[in-house]
Amino acid sequence: MKLSEIARIVGGRLLGEDIEVSGIKGYDEAGSSDITFVANPSLLSSSTEAGAIIVPEGIAPPEGKPCVVVSNPLEAAVVVATLFYREEYGSGISDRAIVYSPVEMGEGVVIREFSVVESGVKLGRNVVVMPFVYVGRNSEIGDDTVIFPHVVIYPNTVIGKRCRIHSGVVLGADGFGYFEKDGKRVKIPQIGRVIIGDDVEIGANTCIDRATFGRTVVGEGTKIDNLVQIGHNVKIGKHCAFAGQVGISGSVSVGDRVLMGGQVGIADHAVIGDDVKIAAKAGVFGRVAPGETIVGAPAMPAGRWKRIQAIINRLPEIYDFFKKLKKREFHGDKGNS
Amino acid sequence: MKLSEIARIVGGRLLGEDIEVSGIKGYDEAGSSDITFVANPSLLSSSTEAGAIIVPEGIAPPEGKPCVVVSNPLEAAVVVATLFYREEYGSGISDRAIVYSPVEMGEGVVIREFSVVESGVKLGRNVVVMPFVYVGRNSEIGDDTVIFPHVVIYPNTVIGKRCRIHSGVVLGADGFGYFEKDGKRVKIPQIGRVIIGDDVEIGANTCIDRATFGRTVVGEGTKIDNLVQIGHNVKIGKHCAFAGQVGISGSVSVGDRVLMGGQVGIADHAVIGDDVKIAAKAGVFGRVAPGETIVGAPAMPAGRWKRIQAIINRLPEIYDFFKKLKKREFHGDKGNS
Amino acid sequence: MKLSEIARIVGGRLLGEDIEVSGIKGYDEAGSSDITFVANPSLLSSSTEAGAIIVPEGIAPPEGKPCVVVSNPLEAAVVVATLFYREEYGSGISDRAIVYSPVEMGEGVVIREFSVVESGVKLGRNVVVMPFVYVGRNSEIGDDTVIFPHVVIYPNTVIGKRCRIHSGVVLGADGFGYFEKDGKRVKIPQIGRVIIGDDVEIGANTCIDRATFGRTVVGEGTKIDNLVQIGHNVKIGKHCAFAGQVGISGSVSVGDRVLMGGQVGIADHAVIGDDVKIAAKAGVFGRVAPGETIVGAPAMPAGRWKRIQAIINRLPEIYDFFKKLKKREFHGDKGNS
Repeated sequence: MKLSEIARIVGGRLLGEDIEVSGIKGYDEAGSSDITFVANPSLLSSSTEAGAIIVPEGIAPPEGKPCVVVSNPLEAAVVVATLFYREEYGSGISDRAIVYSPVEMGEGVVIREFSVVESGVKLGRNVVVMPFVYVGRNSEIGDDTVIFPHVVIYPNTVIGKRCRIHSGVVLGADGFGYFEKDGKRVKIPQIGRVIIGDDVEIGANTCIDRATFGRTVVGEGTKIDNLVQIGHNVKIGKHCAFAGQVGISGSVSVGDRVLMGGQVGIADHAVIGDDVKIAAKAGVFGRVAPGETIVGAPAMPAGRWKRIQAIINRLPEIYDFFKKLKKREFHGDKGNS
Repeated sequence: MKLSEIARIVGGRLLGEDIEVSGIKGYDEAGSSDITFVANPSLLSSSTEAGAIIVPEGIAPPEGKPCVVVSNPLEAAVVVATLFYREEYGSGISDRAIVYSPVEMGEGVVIREFSVVESGVKLGRNVVVMPFVYVGRNSEIGDDTVIFPHVVIYPNTVIGKRCRIHSGVVLGADGFGYFEKDGKRVKIPQIGRVIIGDDVEIGANTCIDRATFGRTVVGEGTKIDNLVQIGHNVKIGKHCAFAGQVGISGSVSVGDRVLMGGQVGIADHAVIGDDVKIAAKAGVFGRVAPGETIVGAPAMPAGRWKRIQAIINRLPEIYDFFKKLKKREFHGDKGNS
Repeated sequence: MKLSEIARIVGGRLLGEDIEVSGIKGYDEAGSSDITFVANPSLLSSSTEAGAIIVPEGIAPPEGKPCVVVSNPLEAAVVVATLFYREEYGSGISDRAIVYSPVEMGEGVVIREFSVVESGVKLGRNVVVMPFVYVGRNSEIGDDTVIFPHVVIYPNTVIGKRCRIHSGVVLGADGFGYFEKDGKRVKIPQIGRVIIGDDVEIGANTCIDRATFGRTVVGEGTKIDNLVQIGHNVKIGKHCAFAGQVGISGSVSVGDRVLMGGQVGIADHAVIGDDVKIAAKAGVFGRVAPGETIVGAPAMPAGRWKRIQAIINRLPEIYDFFKKLKKREFHGDKGNS
């Protein structure tokens, strides 16, 4: 594809020769047939093998390289990426899939080989069901959602529009609920369901459990990374982002636009306000006020955590002084006797 | 279903109008056609939209709402839940499953489409094998056990009766065992097996590795949540409960009735006594005496952990005092010179 | 198999009676028909039920038991294990697998029932594709690699020779990349790929994400345990070993021969030098110099961590002294007024 064509599509302007490129790569990885991009101007101090660069306005482009100048290089790169890479899912309903009746289906649905769609399911327009997907009874999947290979959707689950559910995700397995009787655990039947909003992406091998009696909810626009655990009856707001291996225990409530770093753990029944940021590996319980940034296990406000951490780092020095004082104390006592 | 019928089944008594309900939900989520329940009397201070409530003896029921009075509302709710919700697995051996010979099977076995059962397998009465399950050679599954879609059972695995093995579980993959030779890792063949007792439930995407030479064992009645890792040669006792994302390294021994919170990690060869409770995110190694409650990473007895944590929270105050003393010390020295 | 035969194969010598054994088990688990081995001479102080023992040179073997004497008992045990246990994968291309054209295949390839191999795939000699495996378009799998049931390989992935990819592994799912616009997250298309070197083993349910634009790389000989998360654009060196539930965020660089304990977390863009050892549960960010051993979250050199941890354990004592000083201080002040 010619740079002039790319410039036209991303609404930028071409500087230099109108060469052809055949892909987009990162700054360090691109070759002479690739275009790359500079999201951070400091990158320009190192060199790239790329044939062309997408650069922001007001930056002196590197000599000799053709550039496409735009206001936001990352946004432009996203557009260019979709020009060079298109996912292919196949088409139609495979005769080696199993679809029980009745099932409602919109136009353009793809169901690949070796998938099982149980009865009572509703699939919106252009839903893609890749191989080895299990869709349990009475579940619903919204328009334009892609279900990657090996997803399991337990019965009565609802998934919104334009979602991407990656391989190995399990939606709606039993919550972890028992009561104790005579030293044994008796199962509390988990008869609720999972409701996923529109524009949600769920990473590979993540698990979201069905509610005991009501609903486990993930709000629209929320993005969940791989290997995340979300327990029964959890309510998650809109436009959150949770990194890999986060664990959210049962009955937790999470507000909108909450960010969690990797391996965060949230204790059951915690209540996390809107716009909270939680650092990787934090252990959280109780209530967290909206807008807080918290760190550590047990988690505390970031400022306080930094102060305490700095002192912990000085403990050897404090301890030496403590020993000196102790010793003097001891001699002092002896002197008095 | 009429309340009088429900009261009869759970052995309670009806107070108020004998209305019909069509489901059971949580206190906050129930609507007028649902029954709900009050496990904790303090709930009654808030209101519910439920049409009827299961309440404990000796509690003044909310005015106007029909109630079913029982000695244990949670136990009654469990019974009621099974009246309104029944899992459906299908029936018979699908002609689109693959079952190699010889396989032994009890009465009532269900094997769904796209499952593979290798030769030498024994399936007890009423075993359910959902779609996309792989049962490796010479494995055994006990009566009334349900294997949900996408479970992988490596060869020679034994699963007890009345177990529930959720989607994405992997039983019997190779343990993580190598020895080093010339800076490389040489694989130690993992030729042992996994043995799961009766009445065990295993959550979605949990992994339990085969032993190197002997057995990895999970005792009867133990309940394991999602995304838990259990290494090779681990021995787990009876009636334990492990929350999500727990990780148990190789050759660990765990007693009976041990509880672990989410994201706990146990180092290899640790020995955990009966009735130990381990708080979420704890890091455990060595021996833990029976009955201990431990917290933190590295883990310590809960009382000691609380005391140390309280002091850590006061470190800023201690540090200020330390600086004051230091300063005085310095001036004192100067005064002496 | 006779002990004399085993001695011959492992290059050892037989002491005692030339009995037959039918298996190899661990020291505590072996029975009279098994051979066991002593990697650690201290084991010999306890007894074993084994019929025979593989012992190192220079150790007085237990009275009465036949022994096979070798220089390295563990290495010998590995060889013996392969005599008694052989994995069986089946053979040929199942007519119930789906293989799109064109696909290139070496000799001896096994593709089991219910697998899907998309077009453009290259499979080396003796590759085994077990049931329920999905191999995405244009992926490549090297000679003698085994793909266990339920592995998902997204398009354009490359896997080396002699790898073992365990059940539930997901290679090449989208990296977790978004940018924020008007309070929402806009997806950055993940169009890169995953490259796995030769002799890599990947544990059950582990996820390795495709790069945003370039490559996510795992170097040859690296061994990865179960439920590990490896983010987009990560570069991992050769002969590393990562225990269960490790999480490596996007764009991290890891050197050669790096060891990570269970549940370690590495923050994005961290750079880990060659031969680094990271203790279980550590939280790592920034740069770690080659050869360092680090512990804790946030991680620090092991020596420093031990010193600080020892002081934390003495905080109650320090705090008591602090309170005493404080009190005296107070009295002193009062005395002066």
